[in-house]
Amino acid sequence: MEPIKQFELSKEYLESLRLGIEGEDIDFIRESLDGVNVADIAALLDELSMQESIYVLRLLEKQFSADILIELDEDTLVKVLPELEIPEVASWIELMDSDDGADILSLFGEREREEVIAEIQDRVKLEQILELLRYEEDTAGGIMAKEFIRANKNWNVIQTINEIRRQAENVEKIYSIYVVNNRQQLLGRVSLKKIILAASETRIEDIYDEEVISVPVHMDQEEVASVMRKYDLESVPVVNAKNKLVGRITVDDILDVVQEEADEDIQAMAGVSADIEESDSVFTISKARLPWLLIGVIGGLMGAKIIGFFEDGLSKY
Amino acid sequence: MEPIKQFELSKEYLESLRLGIEGEDIDFIRESLDGVNVADIAALLDELSMQESIYVLRLLEKQFSADILIELDEDTLVKVLPELEIPEVASWIELMDSDDGADILSLFGEREREEVIAEIQDRVKLEQILELLRYEEDTAGGIMAKEFIRANKNWNVIQTINEIRRQAENVEKIYSIYVVNNRQQLLGRVSLKKIILAASETRIEDIYDEEVISVPVHMDQEEVASVMRKYDLESVPVVNAKNKLVGRITVDDILDVVQEEADEDIQAMAGVSADIEESDSVFTISKARLPWLLIGVIGGLMGAKIIGFFEDGLSKY
Repeated sequence: MEPIKQFELSKEYLESLRLGIEGEDIDFIRESLDGVNVADIAALLDELSMQESIYVLRLLEKQFSADILIELDEDTLVKVLPELEIPEVASWIELMDSDDGADILSLFGEREREEVIAEIQDRVKLEQILELLRYEEDTAGGIMAKEFIRANKNWNVIQTINEIRRQAENVEKIYSIYVVNNRQQLLGRVSLKKIILAASETRIEDIYDEEVISVPVHMDQEEVASVMRKYDLESVPVVNAKNKLVGRITVDDILDVVQEEADEDIQAMAGVSADIEESDSVFTISKARLPWLLIGVIGGLMGAKIIGFFEDGLSKY
Repeated sequence: MEPIKQFELSKEYLESLRLGIEGEDIDFIRESLDGVNVADIAALLDELSMQESIYVLRLLEKQFSADILIELDEDTLVKVLPELEIPEVASWIELMDSDDGADILSLFGEREREEVIAEIQDRVKLEQILELLRYEEDTAGGIMAKEFIRANKNWNVIQTINEIRRQAENVEKIYSIYVVNNRQQLLGRVSLKKIILAASETRIEDIYDEEVISVPVHMDQEEVASVMRKYDLESVPVVNAKNKLVGRITVDDILDVVQEEADEDIQAMAGVSADIEESDSVFTISKARLPWLLIGVIGGLMGAKIIGFFEDGLSKY
């Protein structure tokens, strides 16, 4: 028995998938990917050619493809996206969380982005995405999602559960339910556990926790990460200047931020100015290391200069 | 209105707290810390002297003090712990999650650790902590906690909610409920959201999700971090070689792991071999940078050697 249930990305499977794509063996492709985690399929598509990836994405169920798209490497995404049909991209974006939809849209040029936006039918989702696109990429507003459960303090447990039921499809991971007043201002939070354990007539007002840590929409993402780390939060509500609840950030997005920032710091210390990967060409890698190489050259020249300076002295020996 | 509701650690407050401690103004200390987040109080105690910290910890409600103790800097902890009474430490450890209790115990020398263990009254907690102490510090087993909710696949929703109720005090954050068979082997997971939305007679067997990612107890913590990051998990179950569920790791602990590993990498790249902080002495910092300084000295010597090598040639000019 294999204790860690991860999909094994073997060379053999990759080869048989390639053959399946070549032979247009739709049943084999669908069946062999059924039930596999989207992160694993994305890692698989990162290995395939752009045409092969698009072939697979178009074969799978729409929601499944949308979930895989989000998990793709940015390098793969910028190759795949321009090759897709505009209405196709729009329909996938409709199935994503607003923050992921905004991320995908931000990878398009201005003209294509407008074309995709024009094709998005879900008006609520579109409004949410357009709001998110207005915020700076590296701030709380830029990484938050618009999908979360909010409860009015005057509701009871039954009304709140109905709201959860209504939003069940949109909000995959709930963590906390945020409590607001009639003006949508953040008052506190109530955990799902408390909702489960309370009697159905209990009013939210009587069980919610006023001690909630929130972050302002303009806060830098690194600072958001340090707040979430300090207070051990799995999600944090985002508020505007009037304390109105505008979004929430979940810890899985923050884990990516911490890793990215750490990678940047490490590359900066290694004298590498740009983001490079093993797969980049020698030219790209050399260019990224240019500052470091230049320092070497300057050092060499200065050494020669100094020796030249002592030429007279040296020639006496 | 202040959007981010964090406790502001001002010099003025610190000063008034110091005066309160000096004047033994118990009411002032208790009232001014009432409702403040434990992470903020820990940051405050890190600024105080060891005696002052202990004075404050002893004044507060026991559970509150135990929660604060966990959040203290390791530097502060190793100063504070030896000054506490053995029964006092034991009673605080009883109120902690097993992983935190094990962390605290591992900071004691062998003799003191045995003394504390002998004082722990809660036999269940003690057994859990002793099990955790057996695992390597940097592995899944070393960072997991024994507190989580498990449901037998034959239970229905009501029985599961009763289990949650029974464990409500022990398990602060639930995330997922892990589903096991009669031999305690991990079969899958069911989310709290699904429990809320299901009818009370629904059997767990019919609603649980078989696609659960688990990690083996001996897996390195860095690998656990990358699994949780890849699959966007907020908690991951830990299993032994027989797929028996033995613990779970939550993402707040993993966030600390990612940050620690990144800091280590950055320090390694900067040529610093040991963990240094701003507060360390010049001697400690210099010692940590020794590898780097040595390379400089060797480089200088080699340069002199090379010039010596060309001495004859140079002397011709």
